[in-house]
Amino acid sequence: VSEGADKRGGTLLLVGTGLVGGSFALAAKAHGVFDRVVGIDREPHALRQALDLGIVDETTDAPDVACDAACIAVPVGAVADWVQEAAKTAPLVFDVGSVKRPIIDALYPLPPNYVPCHPIAGSERAGPAAAHRDLFNDASVVLTPVAETDAEATATVRGYWQAIGATVTIETPEVHDDRLALVSHLPHLVAFAFMEVVGDADALAGAGGGFRDFTRIAAADAAIWTDILRANASHIERHLDDLIFALQGFSQALLDDSLQTRIEAAAAVRRALDSEQH
Amino acid sequence: VSEGADKRGGTLLLVGTGLVGGSFALAAKAHGVFDRVVGIDREPHALRQALDLGIVDETTDAPDVACDAACIAVPVGAVADWVQEAAKTAPLVFDVGSVKRPIIDALYPLPPNYVPCHPIAGSERAGPAAAHRDLFNDASVVLTPVAETDAEATATVRGYWQAIGATVTIETPEVHDDRLALVSHLPHLVAFAFMEVVGDADALAGAGGGFRDFTRIAAADAAIWTDILRANASHIERHLDDLIFALQGFSQALLDDSLQTRIEAAAAVRRALDSEQH
Repeated sequence: VSEGADKRGGTLLLVGTGLVGGSFALAAKAHGVFDRVVGIDREPHALRQALDLGIVDETTDAPDVACDAACIAVPVGAVADWVQEAAKTAPLVFDVGSVKRPIIDALYPLPPNYVPCHPIAGSERAGPAAAHRDLFNDASVVLTPVAETDAEATATVRGYWQAIGATVTIETPEVHDDRLALVSHLPHLVAFAFMEVVGDADALAGAGGGFRDFTRIAAADAAIWTDILRANASHIERHLDDLIFALQGFSQALLDDSLQTRIEAAAAVRRALDSEQH
Repeated sequence: VSEGADKRGGTLLLVGTGLVGGSFALAAKAHGVFDRVVGIDREPHALRQALDLGIVDETTDAPDVACDAACIAVPVGAVADWVQEAAKTAPLVFDVGSVKRPIIDALYPLPPNYVPCHPIAGSERAGPAAAHRDLFNDASVVLTPVAETDAEATATVRGYWQAIGATVTIETPEVHDDRLALVSHLPHLVAFAFMEVVGDADALAGAGGGFRDFTRIAAADAAIWTDILRANASHIERHLDDLIFALQGFSQALLDDSLQTRIEAAAAVRRALDSEQH
């Protein structure tokens, strides 16, 4: 059915109808990238909800349906199996997993029509009801094609993301996984650990906006994040070691003269982030 | 000049015209709690800015001016000296410091007309230009009077904060300092340490909203936070030890079967915070 990279319209097979997959489907239909979405979800309730919300137009329980592309939007640990299945009939397959190298490794030999993707957008909410068509507008999407990946497939998938308003960059799976361990996975682990220390929401009466922002990601979906943290454990552990070392350094600095200098340097990095990217 | 707790209008002496002090002055004038504010600030530029912005109506360089109350809104390390000075002429003195016991200890013998306060509101911004009259609307303000504190003084200061829309609670200085170490001071220390690990904003291209929220407090004012962290070091260190223990536990959990259970428990605490307080 596919007519190449410039074609608009056609059918998307959506495997996983939650926040990320659902938002892609809504955006893709809104921008005419696809005009029909066939959905699969292991949870019947989610699939029904996705149908009611107009995320999917039809449902199926097997991935061997005629389509122009398949989007695999399931937890990281389940991505490789679905890519393998979908790649048998779909001309093009891409995923949205937050970790890339473990998925690619699990797939060897790699289907050339599979393009590894990670849209860096989300929320602590999950499920079809959290999906919205603007989630990827102005978001950053990383593609991590490898030697086996068909260049035309990569170009087509890049076009999908750009069409819905995202900025696409290409990285190696290793660079992506290491970077995301630092700017996404470790922050989640720290926020989870922090809430474990707090232990009880009653201790938080009157906590300010700073605390709410700092810990917001701790409300994330446990199953999804268990998968991500496990899959990227080696990168996360290395950055966690660095963080514990820095925390011990700050603890020491509470008692010596280096504290203000260290805070100034840290604050400068955070302020540079705002000035560069807003 | 004071005519008692129910009086409205009169003169506030504001020592420190930054975000917190400036916001109190603006709110107090907007709600008729005071109708004239005389300002002191060690930084001439800030004082001039506070005058231009209408935060203060007059400026002075000595605290022995006729007033109905003095608000000491300087970094924690400088509060006690200013309270001591202001309490000589002002009928009523209160502060806004984020740590209470070290200030009280530094003041003994405690002036009975001093009411220790901590409004739990702020932002990573600082200075008079960041002040706004709604900062304390719906905010939580903790008063930590001790045995020496005059009960009528406490009642009057409580009335000031309530008049500008805040909810006032009373705690012991110890409970306050320990709780704030956990829900405010340690999060700042962690965010600073995290930015030290990141090291360079260039590494953050495309970082998502979760990372931005998690690290926002790291852009805080270094001088103010050096003072706070030093003053509350013992409470912070205890909670930091617990956090490092929890982080090591999560690191171990990346490799065993407890990860999802731990994340679920942590996420439940964070979600309870939202459902209780929104």
